[in-house]
Amino acid sequence: MSAPIYLGVIGVGGVGTAFLSQLARLPNPPKLILIARSSQTLLSPTPSYSPAIPAADWKTAIETPSLTKSGALTPDEIAAYLSSAPGRSILVDNTSDPVLAGSYPVFLRKGISIVTPNKKGFSSDLSLWKDIFASATEGKALVYHESTVGAGLPVLSTLKDLVATGDEVTRIEGVFSGTLSFLFNTFAPASGSSSAKWSEVVAQAKDLGYTEPDPRDDLNGMDVARKLTILARIAGLDVQSPDSFPIESLIPDELASLPSSSDGIAQFMTRLPEFDGQMTAIKEGAEKAGKVVRYVGSVDVGKKEVRVGLQQFNKDSAIAGLKGSDNIISFYTRRYGSNPLIVQGAGAGGDVTAMGVTADLIKVLERL
Amino acid sequence: MSAPIYLGVIGVGGVGTAFLSQLARLPNPPKLILIARSSQTLLSPTPSYSPAIPAADWKTAIETPSLTKSGALTPDEIAAYLSSAPGRSILVDNTSDPVLAGSYPVFLRKGISIVTPNKKGFSSDLSLWKDIFASATEGKALVYHESTVGAGLPVLSTLKDLVATGDEVTRIEGVFSGTLSFLFNTFAPASGSSSAKWSEVVAQAKDLGYTEPDPRDDLNGMDVARKLTILARIAGLDVQSPDSFPIESLIPDELASLPSSSDGIAQFMTRLPEFDGQMTAIKEGAEKAGKVVRYVGSVDVGKKEVRVGLQQFNKDSAIAGLKGSDNIISFYTRRYGSNPLIVQGAGAGGDVTAMGVTADLIKVLERL
Repeated sequence: MSAPIYLGVIGVGGVGTAFLSQLARLPNPPKLILIARSSQTLLSPTPSYSPAIPAADWKTAIETPSLTKSGALTPDEIAAYLSSAPGRSILVDNTSDPVLAGSYPVFLRKGISIVTPNKKGFSSDLSLWKDIFASATEGKALVYHESTVGAGLPVLSTLKDLVATGDEVTRIEGVFSGTLSFLFNTFAPASGSSSAKWSEVVAQAKDLGYTEPDPRDDLNGMDVARKLTILARIAGLDVQSPDSFPIESLIPDELASLPSSSDGIAQFMTRLPEFDGQMTAIKEGAEKAGKVVRYVGSVDVGKKEVRVGLQQFNKDSAIAGLKGSDNIISFYTRRYGSNPLIVQGAGAGGDVTAMGVTADLIKVLERL
Repeated sequence: MSAPIYLGVIGVGGVGTAFLSQLARLPNPPKLILIARSSQTLLSPTPSYSPAIPAADWKTAIETPSLTKSGALTPDEIAAYLSSAPGRSILVDNTSDPVLAGSYPVFLRKGISIVTPNKKGFSSDLSLWKDIFASATEGKALVYHESTVGAGLPVLSTLKDLVATGDEVTRIEGVFSGTLSFLFNTFAPASGSSSAKWSEVVAQAKDLGYTEPDPRDDLNGMDVARKLTILARIAGLDVQSPDSFPIESLIPDELASLPSSSDGIAQFMTRLPEFDGQMTAIKEGAEKAGKVVRYVGSVDVGKKEVRVGLQQFNKDSAIAGLKGSDNIISFYTRRYGSNPLIVQGAGAGGDVTAMGVTADLIKVLERL
C-alpha cells in the first residue's frame, strides 16, 4: 500500500486543469511523471522516473531543466513509458479523443489502470467495451469512468452497486445533458412562462458557453446517446453502438448537411429561426395537455429498449422542475419499488467533472 | 487478492436476513465463519476455520454437525476468534447494539475490518468516533458504514468524495427519517389536502409497521440527530454527541415520562389525540404562508450549527414533494453552487439497508 504509484495525465483543457489543481491538494498523491497536451509532452526522466512533475506548478514545470520535454507521443509510446516505471501506474485521460480511448486495452494489458471522463471508450463499438474489461482482467488493472455520465454525480457507482448487490434494475430515466437541460428549462419552464423563441434560447446558451462550439454537437443527441449506451451496458444490455437505437435529433433536416466549419456554424445559427415554429408547436402541444416537454434518455432493461428524445412530463414531476443546467437520473429497481432512487445536480463543468475523476483516482489508489 | 477472506456476521433481524441472502448470491463471497444472534452463535470449527457456513442455508445450518454451536459470545471472544482465522477478516454488525459498537476499536486494532448499518459507533461520544478511526489506522483495517445514513442511498460515499477531492461542503439539508417523511407527507401533503388528524396518521404508520414498536423512538428525533451527527463529523465538525445540538421532539411534554413498556406505549397512543390541536395549528400556520411543514435535519458547516426539527417549505420544493417514506439529502458545496447535489429515495427497509451493507462489503473485499 505504501509503494509509490506513478501517474500520467493526458489533456489539460477545462477538466484537465481542474483535475491537476485537485491532484495538487491530495494528501498522498501519486508521483506525476507525464503530462501530455496536443503537441507537447513533459516527462520525468528515465530510468529513475524522478523528479516528479509538481502538479501545483505544472504550467511552469516546462521550464524545469531536470524534466524531459518531447513532442506528441503515440499511445503505445506513453504505455511503454508508464509500464516501465518502478511501480504500478495509472493513466488519467482527460481528453475526448476516440483514438486514445481505442488504445485503453494496450494500457490495461500492461497493468496500467485507467481513470477517465472520456466517453469514447465505453460508448463506441461493443467490441471495444468488451476488450477494455477483458484487458483489465488480464493485466490486473482497474478502470474507473464515473465522470462519463453525470460528471461528478454518483451515477455509475450507484448503478454498479445496485447490480453488484443483486438488485434488478428495471428502468433508468433522466436528463443527461446539461446543455439540453438548460435549453428546455428556459424554453418551456414548469412554473411561470417564457416567450423566448427556440433559436433565441439556443443563441443565449451558445453565448453563455453552455453549448459545444458547434451547438449541433449538443442538438444531435449523440452525447446523450453515448451516456445511455454506457448505462445500458452496465445494466446488462449488449448495446452494439450508440446509433443502434432511435435518437431524436433536434437539428432540422434542412440544416444537418451544413459544414462543421465556423462558416457552417454561423449559417446554422442564422437559419435556425426559420424552424422556430416547429419547436413552438411541440411546446404548445405539451402545454395543452398541462405538461412540459423535456429531452430525456431512458433504458427499459426488461424490454431491452434504449430511447433518446423529446417527451412530455407533468409540471409537478422532478424532471419538469429541474433548474439551470442540472441533470437528473432516476433508477427504478425491484428493491426500490415504485419510488425510484434519484440523483440530481450539475452534470457538466470542469470542477465537478474533475471531482469525479479525482474521486475515481482515490479509489484506484486505495485498491492498487 | 485471491487469498481467502473470512467473515463474521452479527444480527439476523430484517437487515441481517436480507444481507445473508445478498451475500449468498455474490460471485466470490468471503468465507462465512460466524453467525451470531442474541443467544446463539454458529461457528466454523477451529483451528481449520472450515467448513464455512453456507450463507444461503444459514437457517438450517445450525443442524450441520460439522459446525460449532455456542451460546452468546462477548465482543472480545468474537474478535479473538476472527483474528485467529488464517487470513484477513471482516465483521458485519447488523445490530443496533451500542455495546458491540463500543468494541469496534478492539476489532479494528486486531486488523478486523468493520461493515455496518449500526449508527451507535459513529453517533455516540466523539471519543468513540476518534478511537474507531485511530484503531483502524493502527490495525490497517477498514471501516465502511454507508447504511448508517439513508440506508442504501449513496449519501456518505458522496459526502466523502466531495470532502476528499477538496470541495467545500457548506450545508447539508434533508429528510432523514422514512417514518417522519411518511407522517408529514400524509399529514400535510404538498398537493391535494388531508383532513387526517396527527394522532390518526401516527396510528396508521404504527399499524403499517413504519414506526418503531414504540413510536416515541421516531418522534423524539434522536434517530435523525444521530444521522446528522455522522454527516457533520464527516464534513469536519467535532460534534461531541447527538444531544449537543437542539433537537425538536414531537413527543408532547406531558407524555414523555410514560414508561416504555407495552402498557406505556398503549397509554401514549391513547392520549396522543389530546395534542392533535397543537399539530393542526403548526400545519395551518404553514398553510397560511402557502407552505407545508416537514421534519428536517441540517448542518451549516460554516456556522458549525446542527439542527433537527420542524421547518416550513414552499410547496414546489423537492422536500415538500417527497413521496411515501422517501428520504432526500441535499449537499450544498462551493463547486455545485446554488443548485445542490441531491440524493433521493427509500431510506429505510431491510432490502435497501442490506444493499448498502453488501456494497460496502464488496468495496472492503476489493481493498483487502
